[in-house]
Amino acid sequence: MIRDIQFDDAGRLRHFLTLEGLAPALLYRIMDTAESFVSVTDRQIKKVPLLRGKTIVNLFFENSTRTRTTFELAAKRLSADVLSINIATSATSKGEGLLDTIWNLQAMHVDMFVVRHAHSGAAHFIAQHVEPHVSVINAGDGRHAHPTQAMLDMFTIRRIKGDFTPLSVAIVGDILHSRVARSEIHALKILGVSDIRVIAPPTLLPGGIEQSGLRVFHDLDAGLRDVDVVIMLRLQRERMSGTFLPSKQEYYLRFGLTEARLRQARPDAIVMHPGPINRGVEIDSRVADGVQSVILQQVGYGIAIRMAILSMAMHSGDAAAAAREAS
Amino acid sequence: MIRDIQFDDAGRLRHFLTLEGLAPALLYRIMDTAESFVSVTDRQIKKVPLLRGKTIVNLFFENSTRTRTTFELAAKRLSADVLSINIATSATSKGEGLLDTIWNLQAMHVDMFVVRHAHSGAAHFIAQHVEPHVSVINAGDGRHAHPTQAMLDMFTIRRIKGDFTPLSVAIVGDILHSRVARSEIHALKILGVSDIRVIAPPTLLPGGIEQSGLRVFHDLDAGLRDVDVVIMLRLQRERMSGTFLPSKQEYYLRFGLTEARLRQARPDAIVMHPGPINRGVEIDSRVADGVQSVILQQVGYGIAIRMAILSMAMHSGDAAAAAREAS
Amino acid sequence: MIRDIQFDDAGRLRHFLTLEGLAPALLYRIMDTAESFVSVTDRQIKKVPLLRGKTIVNLFFENSTRTRTTFELAAKRLSADVLSINIATSATSKGEGLLDTIWNLQAMHVDMFVVRHAHSGAAHFIAQHVEPHVSVINAGDGRHAHPTQAMLDMFTIRRIKGDFTPLSVAIVGDILHSRVARSEIHALKILGVSDIRVIAPPTLLPGGIEQSGLRVFHDLDAGLRDVDVVIMLRLQRERMSGTFLPSKQEYYLRFGLTEARLRQARPDAIVMHPGPINRGVEIDSRVADGVQSVILQQVGYGIAIRMAILSMAMHSGDAAAAAREAS
Repeated sequence: MIRDIQFDDAGRLRHFLTLEGLAPALLYRIMDTAESFVSVTDRQIKKVPLLRGKTIVNLFFENSTRTRTTFELAAKRLSADVLSINIATSATSKGEGLLDTIWNLQAMHVDMFVVRHAHSGAAHFIAQHVEPHVSVINAGDGRHAHPTQAMLDMFTIRRIKGDFTPLSVAIVGDILHSRVARSEIHALKILGVSDIRVIAPPTLLPGGIEQSGLRVFHDLDAGLRDVDVVIMLRLQRERMSGTFLPSKQEYYLRFGLTEARLRQARPDAIVMHPGPINRGVEIDSRVADGVQSVILQQVGYGIAIRMAILSMAMHSGDAAAAAREAS
Repeated sequence: MIRDIQFDDAGRLRHFLTLEGLAPALLYRIMDTAESFVSVTDRQIKKVPLLRGKTIVNLFFENSTRTRTTFELAAKRLSADVLSINIATSATSKGEGLLDTIWNLQAMHVDMFVVRHAHSGAAHFIAQHVEPHVSVINAGDGRHAHPTQAMLDMFTIRRIKGDFTPLSVAIVGDILHSRVARSEIHALKILGVSDIRVIAPPTLLPGGIEQSGLRVFHDLDAGLRDVDVVIMLRLQRERMSGTFLPSKQEYYLRFGLTEARLRQARPDAIVMHPGPINRGVEIDSRVADGVQSVILQQVGYGIAIRMAILSMAMHSGDAAAAAREAS
Repeated sequence: MIRDIQFDDAGRLRHFLTLEGLAPALLYRIMDTAESFVSVTDRQIKKVPLLRGKTIVNLFFENSTRTRTTFELAAKRLSADVLSINIATSATSKGEGLLDTIWNLQAMHVDMFVVRHAHSGAAHFIAQHVEPHVSVINAGDGRHAHPTQAMLDMFTIRRIKGDFTPLSVAIVGDILHSRVARSEIHALKILGVSDIRVIAPPTLLPGGIEQSGLRVFHDLDAGLRDVDVVIMLRLQRERMSGTFLPSKQEYYLRFGLTEARLRQARPDAIVMHPGPINRGVEIDSRVADGVQSVILQQVGYGIAIRMAILSMAMHSGDAAAAAREAS
């Protein structure tokens, strides 16, 4: 069996690239570590010295203020030095290749790359080429994976619903193009969720999904019936008209989550969304801002989950214990 | 009477949005606190740990390197973590609304927003929608207010002139479009300045200003006669020609501050300007760089005033006492 | 004799603008100090508190992610606060002059400017106008000088080759337009290198270079014969065609460093390049990534050299001693 590139020789987490193939115990350990950081963010002084003197490079080949910001805050709250590099506007304008950029930054003795890239596999490619002491975190690669987003979603579900196994979870929207959906499906399977559903028009579903063990729905009302968790996906602007969909109005009529639609789910169902939301496209404002929405909790938990993953990849002692102590 | 949104339930300063309606005692307390920070910036180690572990977001919807820089330095010298977000180039490109942006950042457990926005009332609007533990500082909103600039101007005047009540202060230039002028006039009135003058062509004065208690002049020589303080305003490029003014040459001839003109003021009069200056438009270089100019002192005091306001809004114990101690 | 602006009244290094006229002892002292910082960057916690509470402004009028990043990392590892200002996109858009920008930042009590500018002499001009407590570091000015790059190159040579005096060093490429080459030639002369060669087509050499004491070659094979060190220069895109060169293919054929060409040099010769490299233009990938290449070591040493220069210009006690202690 090929050893997973995500672990070092001692079997410890080193890179965090995809959830595919990870053991349930690791996912639980990440969530347990994040649990200890939730209290850090509620403190007056929101810092722990776990990564003091470490240099983390935010390497964003695709612009995302929101994701970059959460990683930057997570790193700063661990007392790391953070370097944010937007590659779209820098080195490549001098025609430098991706690996040359990585090798140069690595030669500056940085400890970690947080990589966002429009191409699937970019973070994995970088992880294959860095030195043994350097870690790579995938902050979203093409349509492939967005594992920290999926982990914060799982963490949100666990904090509210407790046990994963009896849950019904529906993912609604553009499954075909969504790295978030791909990573969430891996996570839900690993954690033993018994009923995983995808709800989308046929044009926004990958071919062969019927053979995946998921329950596939093309009708929102039918798909939402008695679910515990509804995960709405963002409809990207470029899909709002043309070959995939007739129009965004049409999409909203058929797949937009309204209060009426949400009544199909269990009364205590929660509504999630990776953000940023398109109000009136995939979700009605009354649902997004309603009592069942946990969208903003997700954002806060995103900091705690990223603090957990950054500190675990750096093997910074007992991260959970350190987090409990004052900085 | 409606309670001022700028104070918390215990009556302590929470937001800093406008000077309108504030008590003289608060303005003096801000200046007293700033006084203690002036010595910090002169030290070898220019840091105090007052805001350690706090996260301050510079949210600039309008580009201003200078103002952003002073807030960033003020925050760093208080040991806060600073996140600078230029919204013009980020979230809104994904079509996210202002409140969604604020709510998301707030969910990341940030403590303060420093807001610059082209629309009057933007900072106030944000302050109405944030959670109780979050503070909002107005770093300039449309034509409405720029209260930290006005406070640093008052602080500069107090450091040099001492008592406010006997002073004659003239504000010269585009009063109509200037948030700086609006905030300065509030501050000067609150502090009991006996003679407040505005000097401008009629097209650059708001309607009804004659009823405001200010002395209005359309002639620079007449307006400057025997004043103690001259505050020049920046002439925005877009006013330099067209409906408001014949040309910038014509403006300089009538309202540009030259050494000859300045002789109308008292011999110990000081010349102020919020910067950046337009040399040869509203002010002659010999005046800007001359012995009566305190323009660069204003910049330095701007850091101290912003340190005072940031730490007071965060209620960080006895800010003044802490500033006196070494970090 | 005119006192060198680079030193203060006590004869200590204050600005670092050019290597021209510096004594060998100073260059050795910089390298000795850098030596102590090499171990810092290998530590778990890569920080020393030498510049805590100091504010360093990266003032880049020319975009260079790589150079800005190395200065930013050097400053952060010395625990300074760093402000990065890209002037192309900020103050000058409001029409503010260079000196007004400098004076304003200086009024904010910053301690050091690291300046990159397209005009030769810009850093020197700024150094002439700042207050006595402020230092200026030249991070590249026009075609004039890039002294920190030259120093990291010397440091790399010393770490590998030891003594400078017996060495043969060849600089290959666009000598005419290269500030790196100019500074390297000064450094090599100061350090007593016995055989300094430049290899370039006549169109890429300055007039009168034959009278400079350098050995001039227009043929790569002849020039490389028995050298100890090969320094390749980056061929700027704008030279790749037109008046200076027929085409980049032609340039590669005549001046590109291939494995075959490198065999002219001594077997233990090292290959250097300031980066970013143009693979297949001035250097073949097999050489750039080969065993004789020290290009990535240069990058790492660049941090140590910049830490040395920043701390020496700030006169931060015994920088070398402090670096040996844990932070």
